[in-house]
Amino acid sequence: MSTAPTGRAPRRGRPGYDLESLLQVAVKLFNERGYDGTSMEDLARKLGITKSAIYHHVPSKEELLRLAVDRALDGLFAVVAEVETVDGRAVDQLEHLVRGSVAVLTEQLPFVTLLLRVRGNTKVERAALSRRREFDQLVTKLVRRAAEEGDIRPDIDPATTSRLLFGMVNSLIEWYRPRRDSDSVELADAVCAIAFDGLRRHP
Amino acid sequence: MSTAPTGRAPRRGRPGYDLESLLQVAVKLFNERGYDGTSMEDLARKLGITKSAIYHHVPSKEELLRLAVDRALDGLFAVVAEVETVDGRAVDQLEHLVRGSVAVLTEQLPFVTLLLRVRGNTKVERAALSRRREFDQLVTKLVRRAAEEGDIRPDIDPATTSRLLFGMVNSLIEWYRPRRDSDSVELADAVCAIAFDGLRRHP
Repeated sequence: MSTAPTGRAPRRGRPGYDLESLLQVAVKLFNERGYDGTSMEDLARKLGITKSAIYHHVPSKEELLRLAVDRALDGLFAVVAEVETVDGRAVDQLEHLVRGSVAVLTEQLPFVTLLLRVRGNTKVERAALSRRREFDQLVTKLVRRAAEEGDIRPDIDPATTSRLLFGMVNSLIEWYRPRRDSDSVELADAVCAIAFDGLRRHP
Repeated sequence: MSTAPTGRAPRRGRPGYDLESLLQVAVKLFNERGYDGTSMEDLARKLGITKSAIYHHVPSKEELLRLAVDRALDGLFAVVAEVETVDGRAVDQLEHLVRGSVAVLTEQLPFVTLLLRVRGNTKVERAALSRRREFDQLVTKLVRRAAEEGDIRPDIDPATTSRLLFGMVNSLIEWYRPRRDSDSVELADAVCAIAFDGLRRHP
Protein backbone atom coordinates (compact mmCIF):
# COMPACT_ATOMS: atom_id res chain seq x y z
CA MET A 1 0.00 0.00 0.00
CA SER A 2 1.21 3.43 -0.82
CA THR A 3 1.30 6.21 1.71
CA ALA A 4 1.07 8.83 -1.03
CA PRO A 5 -2.01 11.01 -0.89
CA THR A 6 -4.84 9.38 -2.78
CA GLY A 7 -6.53 12.69 -3.35
CA ARG A 8 -9.58 11.41 -1.55
CA ALA A 9 -9.25 12.15 2.14
CA PRO A 10 -6.90 15.04 2.83
CA ARG A 11 -6.03 15.14 6.49
CA ARG A 12 -5.99 18.20 8.64
CA GLY A 13 -2.54 19.73 8.94
CA ARG A 14 -1.36 17.58 6.05
CA PRO A 15 -2.43 19.22 2.82
CA GLY A 16 -0.83 16.36 0.88
CA TYR A 17 0.32 18.50 -2.02
CA ASP A 18 3.23 20.83 -2.42
CA LEU A 19 3.45 23.16 -5.40
CA GLU A 20 5.40 20.61 -7.42
CA SER A 21 2.92 17.75 -7.13
CA LEU A 22 0.04 20.18 -7.64
CA LEU A 23 1.71 21.36 -10.84
CA GLN A 24 2.17 17.79 -12.08
CA VAL A 25 -1.53 17.05 -11.66
CA ALA A 26 -2.54 20.37 -13.22
CA VAL A 27 -0.39 19.76 -16.30
CA LYS A 28 -1.81 16.27 -16.72
CA LEU A 29 -5.34 17.69 -16.55
CA PHE A 30 -4.55 20.57 -18.94
CA ASN A 31 -3.17 18.04 -21.43
CA GLU A 32 -6.24 15.82 -21.15
CA ARG A 33 -8.96 18.46 -21.28
CA GLY A 34 -7.21 21.49 -22.71
CA TYR A 35 -6.14 24.50 -20.66
CA ASP A 36 -9.31 26.42 -21.48
CA GLY A 37 -11.44 23.40 -20.71
CA THR A 38 -10.01 22.95 -17.20
CA SER A 39 -11.26 25.04 -14.30
CA MET A 40 -9.68 25.44 -10.86
CA GLU A 41 -12.82 23.66 -9.66
CA ASP A 42 -11.93 20.64 -11.84
CA LEU A 43 -8.40 20.70 -10.52
CA ALA A 44 -9.56 20.89 -6.90
CA ARG A 45 -11.90 17.95 -7.49
CA LYS A 46 -9.14 15.90 -9.09
CA LEU A 47 -6.79 16.66 -6.18
CA GLY A 48 -9.47 16.08 -3.57
CA ILE A 49 -8.69 19.41 -1.93
CA THR A 50 -10.47 22.73 -1.81
CA LYS A 51 -9.90 25.55 -4.26
CA SER A 52 -8.55 27.71 -1.45
CA ALA A 53 -5.95 25.02 -0.69
CA ILE A 54 -4.79 25.45 -4.30
CA TYR A 55 -4.78 29.24 -3.99
CA HIS A 56 -2.52 28.77 -0.97
CA HIS A 57 0.15 27.64 -3.48
CA VAL A 58 -0.61 29.67 -6.61
CA PRO A 59 -2.59 32.83 -7.26
CA SER A 60 -4.27 31.65 -10.48
CA LYS A 61 -4.72 28.98 -13.13
CA GLU A 62 -2.65 31.11 -15.47
CA GLU A 63 0.24 31.02 -13.00
CA LEU A 64 0.14 27.22 -13.12
CA LEU A 65 0.31 27.43 -16.89
CA ARG A 66 3.23 29.86 -16.68
CA LEU A 67 5.19 27.60 -14.33
CA ALA A 68 4.54 24.63 -16.61
CA VAL A 69 5.46 26.14 -19.97
CA ASP A 70 8.45 27.92 -18.45
CA ARG A 71 9.81 24.62 -17.24
CA ALA A 72 9.68 23.31 -20.81
CA LEU A 73 11.09 26.51 -22.30
CA ASP A 74 13.84 26.82 -19.68
CA GLY A 75 14.88 23.27 -20.51
CA LEU A 76 15.08 24.03 -24.22
CA PHE A 77 16.94 27.32 -23.71
CA ALA A 78 19.41 25.61 -21.36
CA VAL A 79 20.28 23.39 -24.34
CA VAL A 80 20.71 26.51 -26.51
CA ALA A 81 23.08 28.00 -23.90
CA GLU A 82 25.05 24.75 -23.82
CA VAL A 83 25.26 24.65 -27.61
CA GLU A 84 26.59 28.19 -27.73
CA THR A 85 29.61 27.18 -25.64
CA VAL A 86 30.43 24.35 -28.06
CA ASP A 87 33.18 25.46 -30.35
CA GLY A 88 33.20 24.22 -33.82
CA ARG A 89 31.02 23.84 -36.81
CA ALA A 90 27.38 24.85 -36.92
CA VAL A 91 26.36 21.35 -38.06
CA ASP A 92 27.79 19.90 -34.84
CA GLN A 93 26.01 22.53 -32.79
CA LEU A 94 22.79 21.73 -34.65
CA GLU A 95 23.14 18.04 -33.89
CA HIS A 96 23.87 18.89 -30.23
CA LEU A 97 20.71 21.02 -30.16
CA VAL A 98 18.59 18.22 -31.62
CA ARG A 99 19.96 15.68 -29.12
CA GLY A 100 19.47 18.04 -26.20
CA SER A 101 15.93 18.84 -27.32
CA VAL A 102 15.02 15.16 -27.56
CA ALA A 103 16.32 14.75 -24.00
CA VAL A 104 14.21 17.67 -22.75
CA LEU A 105 11.12 16.34 -24.54
CA THR A 106 11.42 12.86 -23.12
CA GLU A 107 12.32 14.04 -19.60
CA GLN A 108 9.71 16.79 -19.40
CA LEU A 109 7.13 15.15 -21.66
CA PRO A 110 3.91 16.53 -20.08
CA PHE A 111 5.38 20.03 -19.79
CA VAL A 112 6.59 20.14 -23.39
CA THR A 113 3.29 18.63 -24.57
CA LEU A 114 1.46 21.50 -22.92
CA LEU A 115 3.89 24.03 -24.39
CA LEU A 116 3.46 22.71 -27.91
CA ARG A 117 -0.32 22.89 -27.68
CA VAL A 118 -0.43 26.47 -26.46
CA ARG A 119 -2.45 28.60 -28.87
CA GLY A 120 -2.00 32.12 -27.58
CA ASN A 121 -5.24 33.23 -25.96
CA THR A 122 -3.72 34.64 -22.77
CA LYS A 123 -0.71 36.76 -21.86
CA VAL A 124 1.17 33.70 -20.60
CA GLU A 125 0.40 31.82 -23.82
CA ARG A 126 1.50 34.72 -26.00
CA ALA A 127 4.75 34.99 -24.04
CA ALA A 128 5.33 31.25 -24.50
CA LEU A 129 4.65 31.48 -28.24
CA SER A 130 7.09 34.34 -28.48
CA ARG A 131 9.85 32.32 -26.75
CA ARG A 132 9.06 29.39 -29.05
CA ARG A 133 9.52 31.67 -32.06
CA GLU A 134 12.85 32.84 -30.62
CA PHE A 135 13.93 29.20 -30.32
CA ASP A 136 12.84 28.48 -33.92
CA GLN A 137 14.82 31.47 -35.15
CA LEU A 138 17.93 30.23 -33.37
CA VAL A 139 17.52 26.85 -35.07
CA THR A 140 17.03 28.52 -38.46
CA LYS A 141 20.19 30.59 -37.93
CA LEU A 142 22.20 27.47 -37.10
CA VAL A 143 20.84 25.70 -40.19
CA ARG A 144 21.78 28.68 -42.36
CA ARG A 145 25.32 28.80 -40.92
CA ALA A 146 25.76 25.05 -41.38
CA ALA A 147 24.76 25.41 -45.04
CA GLU A 148 27.15 28.37 -45.47
CA GLU A 149 29.93 26.31 -43.94
CA GLY A 150 29.20 23.68 -46.59
CA ASP A 151 28.23 20.95 -44.14
CA ILE A 152 24.55 20.61 -44.94
CA ARG A 153 22.62 20.77 -48.19
CA PRO A 154 22.06 24.32 -49.42
CA ASP A 155 19.03 23.50 -51.59
CA ILE A 156 16.33 23.69 -48.91
CA ASP A 157 15.19 26.95 -47.35
CA PRO A 158 16.70 27.08 -43.81
CA ALA A 159 13.36 27.97 -42.20
CA THR A 160 11.73 24.95 -43.88
CA THR A 161 14.58 22.68 -42.80
CA SER A 162 14.33 23.94 -39.26
CA ARG A 163 10.55 23.36 -39.17
CA LEU A 164 10.79 19.85 -40.60
CA LEU A 165 13.68 18.93 -38.30
CA PHE A 166 11.82 20.06 -35.20
CA GLY A 167 8.57 18.70 -36.62
CA MET A 168 10.23 15.31 -36.36
CA VAL A 169 11.58 16.03 -32.85
CA ASN A 170 8.31 17.48 -31.56
CA SER A 171 6.27 14.57 -32.91
CA LEU A 172 7.60 12.66 -29.90
CA ILE A 173 4.87 14.20 -27.77
CA GLU A 174 2.30 12.37 -29.90
CA TRP A 175 3.69 8.89 -29.56
CA TYR A 176 6.60 8.59 -27.11
CA ARG A 177 5.73 6.51 -24.05
CA PRO A 178 8.64 6.33 -21.55
CA ARG A 179 8.10 2.71 -20.54
CA ARG A 180 7.32 1.22 -23.92
CA ASP A 181 9.70 3.02 -26.21
CA SER A 182 13.42 2.99 -26.55
CA ASP A 183 15.26 5.31 -24.24
CA SER A 184 15.97 8.94 -24.89
CA VAL A 185 19.53 8.47 -26.20
CA GLU A 186 18.52 5.75 -28.67
CA LEU A 187 15.72 8.00 -29.84
CA ALA A 188 18.08 10.96 -30.32
CA ASP A 189 20.36 8.63 -32.30
CA ALA A 190 17.44 7.66 -34.55
CA VAL A 191 16.36 11.27 -35.11
CA CYS A 192 19.92 12.35 -35.96
CA ALA A 193 20.56 9.33 -38.18
CA ILE A 194 17.47 10.07 -40.25
CA ALA A 195 17.79 13.87 -40.28
CA PHE A 196 21.51 14.14 -40.95
CA ASP A 197 22.31 10.98 -42.90
CA GLY A 198 18.95 9.95 -44.30
CA LEU A 199 17.17 6.63 -44.48
CA ARG A 200 18.56 5.53 -47.81
CA ARG A 201 21.53 3.21 -47.87
CA HIS A 202 24.15 4.21 -50.35
CA PRO A 203 26.11 1.34 -51.81
CA MET B 1 -17.86 42.68 -53.53
CA SER B 2 -18.55 39.06 -52.96
CA THR B 3 -21.98 37.55 -53.34
CA ALA B 4 -21.08 34.74 -50.96
CA PRO B 5 -23.15 34.60 -47.79
CA THR B 6 -21.60 36.73 -45.09
CA GLY B 7 -23.26 34.75 -42.34
CA ARG B 8 -24.95 37.90 -41.12
CA ALA B 9 -28.25 38.25 -42.89
CA PRO B 10 -29.57 34.99 -44.23
CA ARG B 11 -32.37 35.61 -46.70
CA ARG B 12 -35.67 33.82 -46.78
CA GLY B 13 -35.71 30.95 -49.23
CA ARG B 14 -31.95 31.13 -49.65
CA PRO B 15 -30.33 29.30 -46.80
CA GLY B 16 -26.93 30.27 -48.19
CA TYR B 17 -25.17 27.09 -47.17
CA ASP B 18 -25.00 23.70 -48.73
CA LEU B 19 -23.54 20.78 -46.80
CA GLU B 20 -20.08 21.44 -48.21
CA SER B 21 -19.79 25.06 -47.12
CA LEU B 22 -21.38 24.22 -43.78
CA LEU B 23 -18.73 21.53 -43.31
CA GLN B 24 -15.92 23.96 -44.14
CA VAL B 25 -17.10 26.41 -41.48
CA ALA B 26 -17.64 23.64 -38.93
CA VAL B 27 -14.13 22.27 -39.44
CA LYS B 28 -12.62 25.73 -39.07
CA LEU B 29 -14.52 26.22 -35.81
CA PHE B 30 -13.61 22.75 -34.49
CA ASN B 31 -9.95 23.51 -35.18
CA GLU B 32 -10.14 26.87 -33.42
CA ARG B 33 -12.10 25.87 -30.33
CA GLY B 34 -11.74 22.10 -30.24
CA TYR B 35 -14.49 19.67 -31.21
CA ASP B 36 -15.69 19.28 -27.61
CA GLY B 37 -15.61 23.03 -27.11
CA THR B 38 -17.86 23.77 -30.11
CA SER B 39 -21.64 23.42 -29.83
CA MET B 40 -24.18 23.36 -32.66
CA GLU B 41 -25.34 26.63 -31.14
CA ASP B 42 -21.86 28.14 -31.72
CA LEU B 43 -21.89 26.83 -35.27
CA ALA B 44 -25.36 28.25 -35.97
CA ARG B 45 -24.25 31.64 -34.60
CA LYS B 46 -21.11 31.60 -36.73
CA LEU B 47 -23.12 30.73 -39.85
CA GLY B 48 -25.87 33.21 -39.04
CA ILE B 49 -28.51 30.54 -39.50
CA THR B 50 -30.69 28.58 -37.09
CA LYS B 51 -29.77 25.25 -35.59
CA SER B 52 -32.68 23.63 -37.42
CA ALA B 53 -31.24 24.91 -40.71
CA ILE B 54 -28.09 22.97 -39.83
CA TYR B 55 -30.08 19.86 -38.90
CA HIS B 56 -31.65 20.10 -42.34
CA HIS B 57 -28.22 19.09 -43.69
CA VAL B 58 -26.77 16.83 -40.98
CA PRO B 59 -28.32 14.90 -38.09
CA SER B 60 -25.62 15.75 -35.53
CA LYS B 61 -22.34 17.44 -34.67
CA GLU B 62 -20.72 14.01 -34.65
CA GLU B 63 -21.82 13.48 -38.25
CA LEU B 64 -20.01 16.68 -39.22
CA LEU B 65 -16.91 15.33 -37.50
CA ARG B 66 -17.28 12.01 -39.31
CA LEU B 67 -17.59 13.68 -42.71
CA ALA B 68 -14.53 15.82 -41.95
CA VAL B 69 -12.15 13.16 -40.67
CA ASP B 70 -13.30 10.71 -43.36
CA ARG B 71 -12.35 13.21 -46.02
CA ALA B 72 -8.81 13.35 -44.62
CA LEU B 73 -8.61 9.58 -44.15
CA ASP B 74 -10.06 8.81 -47.58
CA GLY B 75 -7.41 11.07 -49.09
CA LEU B 76 -4.62 9.27 -47.26
CA PHE B 77 -5.97 5.81 -48.10
CA ALA B 78 -6.35 6.78 -51.75
CA VAL B 79 -2.59 7.37 -51.71
CA VAL B 80 -2.07 3.95 -50.14
CA ALA B 81 -4.17 2.34 -52.90
CA GLU B 82 -2.14 4.21 -55.53
CA VAL B 83 1.12 3.08 -53.94
CA GLU B 84 0.01 -0.53 -53.96
CA THR B 85 -0.32 -0.44 -57.75
CA VAL B 86 3.25 0.83 -58.11
CA ASP B 87 5.51 -2.03 -58.99
CA GLY B 88 8.97 -2.04 -57.69
CA ARG B 89 10.94 -1.55 -54.57
CA ALA B 90 9.43 -0.74 -51.19
CA VAL B 91 11.66 2.32 -50.83
CA ASP B 92 10.10 3.82 -53.97
CA GLN B 93 6.62 3.02 -52.71
CA LEU B 94 7.52 4.64 -49.38
CA GLU B 95 8.70 7.79 -51.12
CA HIS B 96 5.50 7.80 -53.20
CA LEU B 97 3.46 7.48 -49.99
CA VAL B 98 5.30 10.39 -48.36
CA ARG B 99 4.82 12.61 -51.41
CA GLY B 100 1.16 11.70 -51.71
CA SER B 101 0.60 12.34 -48.01
CA VAL B 102 2.21 15.78 -48.21
CA ALA B 103 -0.15 16.56 -51.10
CA VAL B 104 -3.20 15.45 -49.09
CA LEU B 105 -2.07 17.47 -46.05
CA THR B 106 -1.56 20.65 -48.00
CA GLU B 107 -4.74 20.26 -50.07
CA GLN B 108 -7.00 19.23 -47.20
CA LEU B 109 -5.18 21.13 -44.46
CA PRO B 110 -8.13 21.91 -42.14
CA PHE B 111 -9.53 18.37 -42.49
CA VAL B 112 -6.21 16.67 -41.74
CA THR B 113 -5.57 19.13 -38.88
CA LEU B 114 -8.84 18.04 -37.30
CA LEU B 115 -8.03 14.37 -37.89
CA LEU B 116 -4.62 14.65 -36.24
CA ARG B 117 -6.09 16.30 -33.16
CA VAL B 118 -8.79 13.71 -32.60
CA ARG B 119 -8.40 12.14 -29.17
CA GLY B 120 -10.94 9.33 -29.14
CA ASN B 121 -13.82 10.38 -26.88
CA THR B 122 -16.64 9.43 -29.26
CA LYS B 123 -17.42 6.53 -31.58
CA VAL B 124 -16.44 8.61 -34.62
CA GLU B 125 -13.15 9.60 -33.00
CA ARG B 126 -12.35 6.03 -32.04
CA ALA B 127 -13.07 4.88 -35.60
CA ALA B 128 -10.78 7.62 -36.94
CA LEU B 129 -7.99 6.63 -34.54
CA SER B 130 -8.35 3.04 -35.62
CA ARG B 131 -8.00 3.98 -39.32
CA ARG B 132 -4.96 6.13 -38.41
CA ARG B 133 -3.37 3.13 -36.70
CA GLU B 134 -4.07 1.05 -39.81
CA PHE B 135 -2.29 3.69 -41.91
CA ASP B 136 0.68 3.75 -39.51
CA GLN B 137 0.95 -0.02 -39.69
CA LEU B 138 1.02 0.11 -43.49
CA VAL B 139 3.87 2.64 -43.32
CA THR B 140 5.76 0.48 -40.82
CA LYS B 141 5.35 -2.55 -43.10
CA LEU B 142 6.74 -0.61 -46.05
CA VAL B 143 9.69 0.60 -43.97
CA ARG B 144 10.41 -2.97 -42.86
CA ARG B 145 10.28 -4.26 -46.46
CA ALA B 146 12.54 -1.46 -47.69
CA ALA B 147 15.08 -2.37 -44.99
CA GLU B 148 14.84 -6.07 -45.91
CA GLU B 149 15.40 -5.18 -49.56
CA GLY B 150 18.58 -3.42 -48.44
CA ASP B 151 17.49 0.03 -49.60
CA ILE B 152 17.15 1.78 -46.26
CA ARG B 153 19.16 1.57 -43.06
CA PRO B 154 18.38 -1.51 -40.98
CA ASP B 155 19.59 -0.04 -37.67
CA ILE B 156 16.43 1.82 -36.65
CA ASP B 157 13.28 0.06 -35.51
CA PRO B 158 10.75 0.29 -38.42
CA ALA B 159 7.95 1.56 -36.14
CA THR B 160 10.22 4.35 -34.86
CA THR B 161 11.26 5.26 -38.41
CA SER B 162 7.65 5.34 -39.52
CA ARG B 163 6.66 7.59 -36.57
CA LEU B 164 9.55 10.00 -37.13
CA LEU B 165 8.97 10.13 -40.88
CA PHE B 166 5.28 10.93 -40.48
CA GLY B 167 6.07 13.15 -37.51
CA MET B 168 7.94 15.32 -40.00
CA VAL B 169 5.11 15.11 -42.58
CA ASN B 170 2.34 15.76 -40.05
CA SER B 171 4.16 18.74 -38.57
CA LEU B 172 2.95 20.62 -41.65
CA ILE B 173 -0.38 21.18 -39.94
CA GLU B 174 1.42 23.28 -37.33
CA TRP B 175 3.16 25.66 -39.66
CA TYR B 176 2.20 25.29 -43.34
CA ARG B 177 0.35 28.32 -44.70
CA PRO B 178 -0.74 27.87 -48.34
CA ARG B 179 -0.08 31.45 -49.39
CA ARG B 180 3.16 32.06 -47.59
CA ASP B 181 4.99 28.79 -47.94
CA SER B 182 6.47 27.03 -50.89
CA ASP B 183 4.06 24.89 -52.83
CA SER B 184 3.16 21.34 -52.07
CA VAL B 185 5.58 19.71 -54.53
CA GLU B 186 8.55 21.74 -53.31
CA LEU B 187 7.63 20.82 -49.77
CA ALA B 188 7.40 17.11 -50.65
CA ASP B 189 10.84 17.44 -52.28
CA ALA B 190 12.23 18.94 -49.06
CA VAL B 191 10.70 16.24 -46.86
CA CYS B 192 12.02 13.44 -49.10
CA ALA B 193 15.46 15.04 -49.45
CA ILE B 194 15.86 15.24 -45.67
CA ALA B 195 14.24 11.91 -44.82
CA PHE B 196 15.85 9.77 -47.51
CA ASP B 197 19.18 11.46 -48.17
CA GLY B 198 19.74 13.49 -45.00
CA LEU B 199 20.84 17.05 -44.41
CA ARG B 200 24.56 16.36 -44.28
CA ARG B 201 26.61 16.89 -47.39
CA HIS B 202 29.00 14.14 -48.14
CA PRO B 203 32.15 15.26 -49.89
